[in-house]
Amino acid sequence: MSRRQDVLAGHLSANPAQNDAVAPFPTSARAHRQLPRFDATLMERYMDPSHLLKEEVYAVFREHPELLVKELEALSKEEHRELVRRCLRALLASGQSPLTLLASDPRRYFYLGELMSLVDLSLTVKMGVQYSLWGGSVLNLGSEEHRRRYFDAIDRFDLPGCFAMTELRHGSNVAALQTEAVLDVETDEWVIHTPDDGALKWWIGNAAEDGLAATVFARLKVPAASGRRELDDHGVHAFVVPLRTAPGRLAPGVDIQDCGYKVGLNGVDNGAIRFTHVRVPRGALLDRFASVDRAGRYSSPMPSAAKRFAATLGELTGGRVGLTAGSLGVLKGGLTIAIRYSAQRQQFGPGGAAPEVAVLDYPSQQLRLLPALATAYALTFAKDALVDKYVEMKRTRDEALTADVHSLSAGLKAYTTGFTAATLSVCRECCGGHGYAAVNRLGALRSDHDIFQTFEGDNTVLLQQVAGLLLKEYRDSFRGSPLAASWSYLRAALGDALPANPLLAHDTTPRHLRDPRFLISALRHRTARMLHTVAARLRKHTRRHGAFKAWNRCLLHLLDLARAHIESVALESMYAGVQRCNDPDCRSSLKALADLFALSRIHADILFRNDDYLSPEKAKAVKRMVESLCGELRGVAVALVDAFGIPDHILRAPIGLASAQHDPYGEYLAATGWET
Amino acid sequence: MSRRQDVLAGHLSANPAQNDAVAPFPTSARAHRQLPRFDATLMERYMDPSHLLKEEVYAVFREHPELLVKELEALSKEEHRELVRRCLRALLASGQSPLTLLASDPRRYFYLGELMSLVDLSLTVKMGVQYSLWGGSVLNLGSEEHRRRYFDAIDRFDLPGCFAMTELRHGSNVAALQTEAVLDVETDEWVIHTPDDGALKWWIGNAAEDGLAATVFARLKVPAASGRRELDDHGVHAFVVPLRTAPGRLAPGVDIQDCGYKVGLNGVDNGAIRFTHVRVPRGALLDRFASVDRAGRYSSPMPSAAKRFAATLGELTGGRVGLTAGSLGVLKGGLTIAIRYSAQRQQFGPGGAAPEVAVLDYPSQQLRLLPALATAYALTFAKDALVDKYVEMKRTRDEALTADVHSLSAGLKAYTTGFTAATLSVCRECCGGHGYAAVNRLGALRSDHDIFQTFEGDNTVLLQQVAGLLLKEYRDSFRGSPLAASWSYLRAALGDALPANPLLAHDTTPRHLRDPRFLISALRHRTARMLHTVAARLRKHTRRHGAFKAWNRCLLHLLDLARAHIESVALESMYAGVQRCNDPDCRSSLKALADLFALSRIHADILFRNDDYLSPEKAKAVKRMVESLCGELRGVAVALVDAFGIPDHILRAPIGLASAQHDPYGEYLAATGWET
Repeated sequence: MSRRQDVLAGHLSANPAQNDAVAPFPTSARAHRQLPRFDATLMERYMDPSHLLKEEVYAVFREHPELLVKELEALSKEEHRELVRRCLRALLASGQSPLTLLASDPRRYFYLGELMSLVDLSLTVKMGVQYSLWGGSVLNLGSEEHRRRYFDAIDRFDLPGCFAMTELRHGSNVAALQTEAVLDVETDEWVIHTPDDGALKWWIGNAAEDGLAATVFARLKVPAASGRRELDDHGVHAFVVPLRTAPGRLAPGVDIQDCGYKVGLNGVDNGAIRFTHVRVPRGALLDRFASVDRAGRYSSPMPSAAKRFAATLGELTGGRVGLTAGSLGVLKGGLTIAIRYSAQRQQFGPGGAAPEVAVLDYPSQQLRLLPALATAYALTFAKDALVDKYVEMKRTRDEALTADVHSLSAGLKAYTTGFTAATLSVCRECCGGHGYAAVNRLGALRSDHDIFQTFEGDNTVLLQQVAGLLLKEYRDSFRGSPLAASWSYLRAALGDALPANPLLAHDTTPRHLRDPRFLISALRHRTARMLHTVAARLRKHTRRHGAFKAWNRCLLHLLDLARAHIESVALESMYAGVQRCNDPDCRSSLKALADLFALSRIHADILFRNDDYLSPEKAKAVKRMVESLCGELRGVAVALVDAFGIPDHILRAPIGLASAQHDPYGEYLAATGWET
Repeated sequence: MSRRQDVLAGHLSANPAQNDAVAPFPTSARAHRQLPRFDATLMERYMDPSHLLKEEVYAVFREHPELLVKELEALSKEEHRELVRRCLRALLASGQSPLTLLASDPRRYFYLGELMSLVDLSLTVKMGVQYSLWGGSVLNLGSEEHRRRYFDAIDRFDLPGCFAMTELRHGSNVAALQTEAVLDVETDEWVIHTPDDGALKWWIGNAAEDGLAATVFARLKVPAASGRRELDDHGVHAFVVPLRTAPGRLAPGVDIQDCGYKVGLNGVDNGAIRFTHVRVPRGALLDRFASVDRAGRYSSPMPSAAKRFAATLGELTGGRVGLTAGSLGVLKGGLTIAIRYSAQRQQFGPGGAAPEVAVLDYPSQQLRLLPALATAYALTFAKDALVDKYVEMKRTRDEALTADVHSLSAGLKAYTTGFTAATLSVCRECCGGHGYAAVNRLGALRSDHDIFQTFEGDNTVLLQQVAGLLLKEYRDSFRGSPLAASWSYLRAALGDALPANPLLAHDTTPRHLRDPRFLISALRHRTARMLHTVAARLRKHTRRHGAFKAWNRCLLHLLDLARAHIESVALESMYAGVQRCNDPDCRSSLKALADLFALSRIHADILFRNDDYLSPEKAKAVKRMVESLCGELRGVAVALVDAFGIPDHILRAPIGLASAQHDPYGEYLAATGWET
């Protein structure tokens, strides 16, 4: 706990110097050829101090091995949905109360979702729908009365529910949703209605089979103050609407179709919903940010409709934190399988009597897997820092912190899920043919995870929100207002947006290339430089083309800016984590991972060359250092995935088990039906 | 036909000047803001002159709509396998004779496989196993007697068979296979035996259910000339071995396990096979390149064991040509769905009364889809050129041409399948949530196609073969021997491996940036430069570390070289195709696609900056030109996918149909069970 509070204090500091993870950093004189071996259990404890919850919930699945299916591809969607229900009930029966955790100990709540991701990602998502979305909307958008009424039944899964936001025609552009909620003042009821097929609620989790109720997002319309025949449209609000009167029996006016098979996550019952003049009481409006009285008069404590809408959506950032954690769970699982297998699988060799070489000894395999491993570690530190901030935000309701958490959760969700999706493909390819066996899980993990890039905010849209907030801070910085936490480095870095010192631009010594001061400055420089130039471009284009067109003309630049910022933030979280680590052997490996994370980004970005931040010789030295660090990390790569601490009975993939390190094909042969 | 012969003549020319697609090229003075509309049917006919076969075979599926399943995810593997069998039988019943095509008209054979890829990729692969691999091994490795015996039964699928090469422990390193074929001179029989579990034949298509026989790759062992107790191991040879005595009845000594569910291609019945002292007659050896007489004496017409083995594997290049074609079929399908949907799907807009904007109008969407579309066109031209060469090689048996086809088929297979795999993910992401519906096919296409990167040569291994052949040609070029076709450009380019002319390095005019002479020279320069430097590095490291280690130290460089070469070759094939196109409107779009293909590669590669081949300003101008070309191509993007000519009944994905251009969600609503 104290570690986490330190992180928090560091990140919340208004003084960028205190936030600087760099100063007292010991750097090795030159690249080691070999990293010291470390104790993987020690590393696991350092990375994950809350392992007790892990042991507790994974024990449930040790006792119920029938819940752990080897080939999800073999199940029909109905079978898979039933399996997920049974998993959830087993968890609840073991004493877990997810909604209580969400409300009172969100750190544990997010961790639970991450842990379930390798049991079955459909389970993580089913729980996300039930607790983060359905439960979270009641908790965060409703009144005390709503909580009292629904809380326990949601927590126990006695009241399965939905989050009915997305429509057939509108996903990202939530403000344009078309479902209507019109107040009938006579009867004191809302009439929920789907005006046309484009407004059908679509992809609604829990809707096809289980959902008894839903939080429905609809345009709130009340009689205009001026006269009875006109309606005022107050925009999108949330209402609790019953879907079924009992399991299997649709409520009057509600039609639901199963969305059918999906690319993955077939254990979640997504449905499409049509409402035909469905009547619910006036109290069905979740009224924390707006209410309507008996006379049909609308009022909101928020200063503007835009702020009210932003506050409504802002309450849902928890979902993105959960997705980031779940995505990391899957990323670690994929890397564990691919790296352990690559260390065992041998192919080709020098010939003669010499043995074949493990494929992880080939630089091509290293370059695909080891920077990805470094990224998994960096994103873990960044996610932990985000969770700490989220907890603190929930406690303090501090406005600057809320903006920071909003931006960071959007950015990390987008970056992490995009990275995990790409890396799962790499893991499959690195496992060759055996990676294509369903039993080795890489296909289902990829297919299930794929939509993490799209739901709860399409990544392209989320990155634009990050860029938008950075630009706001940039403009504010000229007005002297304080820069908030995650982007506070920019104030110092904006001075650096000039080309680098020519002496530094030519320094190719290993000591310099692995100096965190250089690496952090380089990523800061990049973000600051992009921010500086895109702000100028936006100003120019806005004058000529208006804000919407100007933004889109700069769109690629803005997306690059957001990704660069997230990489800066992740790197700094990671170096802070390296520094806190007391075990010197663990720390050496963490430091090497952090260096590799940074150097692989610098190598991949032509901006540093176009800027002359790096001389051509230095750019080539960066590339060589990336390859050399991959070589060093190869020796500890298996220990680094062992430290993810995924037990064999949860990982399941026969080629990726810890036990397969002694008998690489034994479990796999058994899984294919061979007696061995 | 005459077009294709022209291409062929151009590519086969020993004179690089004649091979230069550039000279008389008209270039526009500056970037168009709008490309002229063109007739998509005209473009389709130009790109695909053999459309009659398409109409013929697609008619089969119009008559049998029950063979076209909407959600492959809904089938068990047994149901899916049965469906694939029925598809194949329907094709055969309609009069197709795939093995006859393979033997006498390979161009049509490859095209048939490409056409089936969007019916069901499992069907393409099942046919590949039956005809390219099982049939092809009998045709190309056997004698006239073998052909006579098996040809018709294979063609009619009366004798389903396998290609049993891969083992549990050995995939890429074929020379290290462990299955044994020991001659028993007494009985004049081979004894086929699996010495241990690592040598189990694994992933063998057609083995789990259908296969009655297999071409088994095993180490040929005969009594040593010196004495009876010792055996000479002559390395891996191919033998025809019965697997089942009748459907469902395993032959004595043969054990088979189903490999189970896979990530995709579950319509193909892959199995693992154990042979326990299975006896087959001496004549079971496919003896084109080696034979054994009654006394057990081994002989081969080939000058060395290495050459014999290379010739054996070389006969299988047809499989890679087929995979390239099939992969392109899937790529075109994915892009058709994603681009048509992106042109219809609207989200966000300038606000007020203005309508929302189609997502394809956002530069972020354009940058993800339009360079990919350009690449699909470039690879189509490259594949057509490869098929032409393959046909010519089969006719002439010319040695230089054989080496060229070997390298080009390896390189194009690796490049195309890697590109398609990555692009299918992009297509899914670009279609957002609706791209995740199984009915829209992007998930199954990706999962099915995924293994194309691994089978019939892992892409990483194939690219090394390409690099190896380039290095050989490079060394030969110093000895004055003629450079063969595909890499002949290197002779001229090697002189260019020096830094660029400083004037050119600063030319940022649109006319220059879109001049094919510049673009071709830039890609040639890159390949030549990489070849030059890697050859020097290899020389240096080989002296110190020996050949195997030296190669692996340079491995990343070698892989980059191979990819760069393939991009050079594809670009030149494409400009040749642009030049041959007589319709000026079609030609403008093809030219823009070729420019975009080249510029997006130049933009992505830091080598050009490190080399000072591009000044920083020019690098930025290249980036702007990529974005500007995307904007131009956006207007014709739908016509460019229409020109792929995929009929709606084959494409099936409701959001991607040609008919959806008028009613974007109508078919999709119907597919989800809504009456509209």
